[in-house]
Amino acid sequence: MMVLKPGRRPGPSLTRDSILDAARHLFGERGFDATTIRDIAALADVDPAMVHHHFGSKDKLFTAALGAPIDPREHIEAVLTGPDDSMGERLLETMLAIWDSPIGIAGVALLRTSIQHEWGAKLLREFVLMRALTPIMQHLGLPEEEARWRTGLLATQISGVILMRFVIKLDPIATASRADLVAAMAPNVQRYLTGLLPVREF
Amino acid sequence: MMVLKPGRRPGPSLTRDSILDAARHLFGERGFDATTIRDIAALADVDPAMVHHHFGSKDKLFTAALGAPIDPREHIEAVLTGPDDSMGERLLETMLAIWDSPIGIAGVALLRTSIQHEWGAKLLREFVLMRALTPIMQHLGLPEEEARWRTGLLATQISGVILMRFVIKLDPIATASRADLVAAMAPNVQRYLTGLLPVREF
Repeated sequence: MMVLKPGRRPGPSLTRDSILDAARHLFGERGFDATTIRDIAALADVDPAMVHHHFGSKDKLFTAALGAPIDPREHIEAVLTGPDDSMGERLLETMLAIWDSPIGIAGVALLRTSIQHEWGAKLLREFVLMRALTPIMQHLGLPEEEARWRTGLLATQISGVILMRFVIKLDPIATASRADLVAAMAPNVQRYLTGLLPVREF
Repeated sequence: MMVLKPGRRPGPSLTRDSILDAARHLFGERGFDATTIRDIAALADVDPAMVHHHFGSKDKLFTAALGAPIDPREHIEAVLTGPDDSMGERLLETMLAIWDSPIGIAGVALLRTSIQHEWGAKLLREFVLMRALTPIMQHLGLPEEEARWRTGLLATQISGVILMRFVIKLDPIATASRADLVAAMAPNVQRYLTGLLPVREF
């Protein structure tokens, strides 16, 4: 338990918490793009300079609001570097390597929150779209509607392997080597990325 | 709030609850096959006849313990009937039709419980394996280790589409027609069922 010493003001951590609360609310309601630092500061009733002071940037505030242990954007380069027709393999390898590391424990907590709370689900949608998958689609240069469809399909496969390997711990998915999993799943992920999909009216 | 009338004994519903608690504990610990009605009755401190009286069979007790709104075994025939090379399509169509119906609401609650509680995760593992996917693998006549591997891979894809469509509600997966989703995903599901997978040492 934290004991407040006489003369020490509880300001900074309360300010930080109210900024995080406001950020979760607005990112969840409006999405990442339509939310400004100024809006968040206004809702938290603090000066925008305080938001910059505590979190540095909107990107970093978003990651903090979500409780995400890493920013996927920092890992996306490893996925994009190389031939497009083996991107599925690199995406799986990069993503599973992160989740297999100690960071994965925080990831499981994040996934549990997203599934339990509506604001968590909203933030995860933004996170999945903005951070992890949209840069890949931009790299592939697809039309927007097709990119959203492929992104969604990718999310079904990637979220499912995370759920089964790290949360539900279904054998042999939980105990398989990463190499075996990547080899077995890469063609499926690749099909969602660049393969032929049935014609769909958008 | 339930008010107990004088003279009315609270016995039956307490008995039912203690049987359910014991069932969750033992199914979770030992799995479906290794758990007997007799074990559950002993742990709940009731006569085995009471278990049969309240739940009818071990199958029905398992479904009740999990809080599952349906028993997938009753729907498996629709998946197994037809050519093996279009089984992926029938599996997706059958599964999504159930989740798109009002039953899906109870399904989401079940998935939330499984993700939140360790006993829920254990029961879901049993449920996925015993109920939904094992009969399909038996039908395909695969060696046990390969069947478990394919079952696990299937579970990653199927759980992921359920998570994105019904829990996280990621667009366009949440809003797509069932026909579009089945068409886009069926080849991936089919590959896990009967397609060529990389050699793996079991």
